[in-house]
Amino acid sequence: MQAAQPEETMSDKLIKAQTLKGFRDYLPDAAMAREHIIDVARRVYRSYGFSPIDTPALEYSEILLGKGSDETDKQMFRFRDQGDRDVAMRFDLTIPFARFAAQHLADIGTPFKRYHIGTVWRAEKPQKGRFREFMQCDFDTIGTDANAADIETLLVIHDLLEQIGIERFTIRVNHRQLLNGLLEKIGLADRSVGVLRALDKLPKIGRDKVLAEMTGDVGADEAAAAQVLDFAELSGSPEEVLSKVESLVTGSERGLDGVNRLRELFATVRTAGIDAGRVQLDVSIARGLDYYTGTIYETFLDDLPKIGSVCSGGRYDNLAGLFTKQPLPGVGASLGLDRLLAALQELGVLETTTTPANVLVTLFDKDHLADYIRIGRVLRQAGIATEVYPLFRPLKKQFQYADRKGFKALVVAGGDEFDAGVWTVKNLASGEQQQVREADIAEAIRGISG
Amino acid sequence: MQAAQPEETMSDKLIKAQTLKGFRDYLPDAAMAREHIIDVARRVYRSYGFSPIDTPALEYSEILLGKGSDETDKQMFRFRDQGDRDVAMRFDLTIPFARFAAQHLADIGTPFKRYHIGTVWRAEKPQKGRFREFMQCDFDTIGTDANAADIETLLVIHDLLEQIGIERFTIRVNHRQLLNGLLEKIGLADRSVGVLRALDKLPKIGRDKVLAEMTGDVGADEAAAAQVLDFAELSGSPEEVLSKVESLVTGSERGLDGVNRLRELFATVRTAGIDAGRVQLDVSIARGLDYYTGTIYETFLDDLPKIGSVCSGGRYDNLAGLFTKQPLPGVGASLGLDRLLAALQELGVLETTTTPANVLVTLFDKDHLADYIRIGRVLRQAGIATEVYPLFRPLKKQFQYADRKGFKALVVAGGDEFDAGVWTVKNLASGEQQQVREADIAEAIRGISG
Repeated sequence: MQAAQPEETMSDKLIKAQTLKGFRDYLPDAAMAREHIIDVARRVYRSYGFSPIDTPALEYSEILLGKGSDETDKQMFRFRDQGDRDVAMRFDLTIPFARFAAQHLADIGTPFKRYHIGTVWRAEKPQKGRFREFMQCDFDTIGTDANAADIETLLVIHDLLEQIGIERFTIRVNHRQLLNGLLEKIGLADRSVGVLRALDKLPKIGRDKVLAEMTGDVGADEAAAAQVLDFAELSGSPEEVLSKVESLVTGSERGLDGVNRLRELFATVRTAGIDAGRVQLDVSIARGLDYYTGTIYETFLDDLPKIGSVCSGGRYDNLAGLFTKQPLPGVGASLGLDRLLAALQELGVLETTTTPANVLVTLFDKDHLADYIRIGRVLRQAGIATEVYPLFRPLKKQFQYADRKGFKALVVAGGDEFDAGVWTVKNLASGEQQQVREADIAEAIRGISG
Repeated sequence: MQAAQPEETMSDKLIKAQTLKGFRDYLPDAAMAREHIIDVARRVYRSYGFSPIDTPALEYSEILLGKGSDETDKQMFRFRDQGDRDVAMRFDLTIPFARFAAQHLADIGTPFKRYHIGTVWRAEKPQKGRFREFMQCDFDTIGTDANAADIETLLVIHDLLEQIGIERFTIRVNHRQLLNGLLEKIGLADRSVGVLRALDKLPKIGRDKVLAEMTGDVGADEAAAAQVLDFAELSGSPEEVLSKVESLVTGSERGLDGVNRLRELFATVRTAGIDAGRVQLDVSIARGLDYYTGTIYETFLDDLPKIGSVCSGGRYDNLAGLFTKQPLPGVGASLGLDRLLAALQELGVLETTTTPANVLVTLFDKDHLADYIRIGRVLRQAGIATEVYPLFRPLKKQFQYADRKGFKALVVAGGDEFDAGVWTVKNLASGEQQQVREADIAEAIRGISG
């Protein structure tokens, strides 16, 4: 082999520059849009006292698999490391958080509020908008079943969307015990998984097909199945619906507890000054079958509902039962970063730019490189992000660069300006330019780039 | 197997909560410290017009291996994915950037300035302060060999350290062509790799042993080896040293070019107003053998030099020769995030806290949950990060929680306060408390938490 392939050919052969199927690069415009959303999420999470944590990308497979399904197993990037350990890349942030909570419980104490913004990997079949590497932005409060934490979760979701700059959105809220209470009353408690699975399809397949599934596979009688569907289709103000549910579940303690918690939630949300139209009770949403046990949240963009929920979550009884005997009830939600970014792009809300700086200092007079570099520093110290073009090329070329990148202002100076002790500041949108002394340059630029 | 293990035993068995050897969790205090440094780095990079990019954690092994050594191969987490592709986790951000630049050259154009803050993985032998997963913070300007970019790289390093809050640091600068120019003149140009390797050990093993290595393995004659060492030990102001080097390398074009570029660098750095003591010429530093071809930077903390360089980099001739025939010269550096964090901790510069919020609203009167939650919202809207305790527990417990987490102020209200329409604000450091109307609460808290 070695002899057959002369060294020259080897080194001349280029390696094809490509990413793996289902993976992608972030170019500056996409990376800046993502950084912006992450910044907002962090600011909102922190404003409520949630602290950041991080966990490794690689864990023992045993931990990540937990009681996971075959589906999970197939989607994991799993391998044997140099020490022959069975390891895998995390496919969500929930199981690592469960492991983390069990491992560090004595250090973190409860209640514990954390956010975790991190990359996860799933070997799913790639398709439009679905990648094998994506980011999750989770926040949770664990170690308490207090309704205050449920209510706060909703406020965080609200502030997230609002601060990202979305005006028209709806947070749909439900409580798993409403339906469970009803099922208990009508004798279907032991078939709740099948009922929920059928009900989950309601928006997609419609009432008749759901009824058929319930009376077929699930094995409910027709009257009970009809009651479940009547329940799922209840409408009106949250207070009205809750009153109807209350009468339907009377006698079921868990059902009434759910009603009372939601009553308190809607009352508090109003007192806190949240726009009532943004928070709706939707007793039909179920969100997964096993995990959530209490409040459930889904968030839809009113102008783009078809993309699905952009921020979902709920309350669970026990986060870390696989790892510790200490019960850890909690509540939280996850911002669908990539889905939201795609939506913002589709809605034209994202301002795309390829430079984080607004100002470009162009180079002209080779004797004055130090002054061009110095003025960049002067502007930065005044809080203005400023790029200095690195080359003495024709100004036309530098102007083209400024156009392509999207700078808002140019700073130009040649022999005349240096003699007179001034700088020319050019507004790239209007084409206007003015000559200003160094002491006034920051103000002149603020007038342009805002 | 299935029959031998009854299901009850299975589900009762806990999975041990542990991280892999060489990996670690970030608890809130560590995660907040890291987020702070990353924030500063991003702000500084952006202030110079560097844009963010990102690349996948997983790449084709062929790409990451490039012309890498066996050492690199051994350290890679490498495996076959579900599609039987030979893939690996990135072990630095340089090779992915080379691949990225070659792949997207038409889109990004040149000059191109990017920063990349991302996690990398190396299966190194774990030891104190060395982990198998760590973060790199790189910035580079590619597509130009202009000295302005070299000078700017130094300014970015300077601003990084300064903005992180370090006052006493030294950036050591060198240019690879100074020594190459000398070697050319004294006939050792073809042994530069060996000479550099020996010279790299100078701080550790001293002059005599380096001399021995040069005259031994490297095969230089004694006079030439002595000249190299005299050169490496030149001292004085940058201008003085450069004058001496100039006379030593006269006749070597590359040597003189290096001298001229460093002259311009030091002159510009002074004009730009950088403290001269923070930037030193050190003709002995070499930084790796193959990669860097021009300017070289290393950065040391004056109060903790033993931890080594916390920000290093330099100029290279061609970033992406493995992937494209288009030459891409560039210059950049990398902030050693973990090393710096360890140093800041050792120096006691890091303020550690486990909550990002300064204020805790305690719960007392069960009829007023909505008001407690509302006042949290009022404070957040005034820009004050505020946590609302989720449970109605004895105030003593809530105060203990506040102490443990490090809040600065408490907001308390019971029946009397609600009747009078006031809130009690308590300064946790001084113990002082005052009653204020809602309209004044944000100001009262700013008076405490600054």
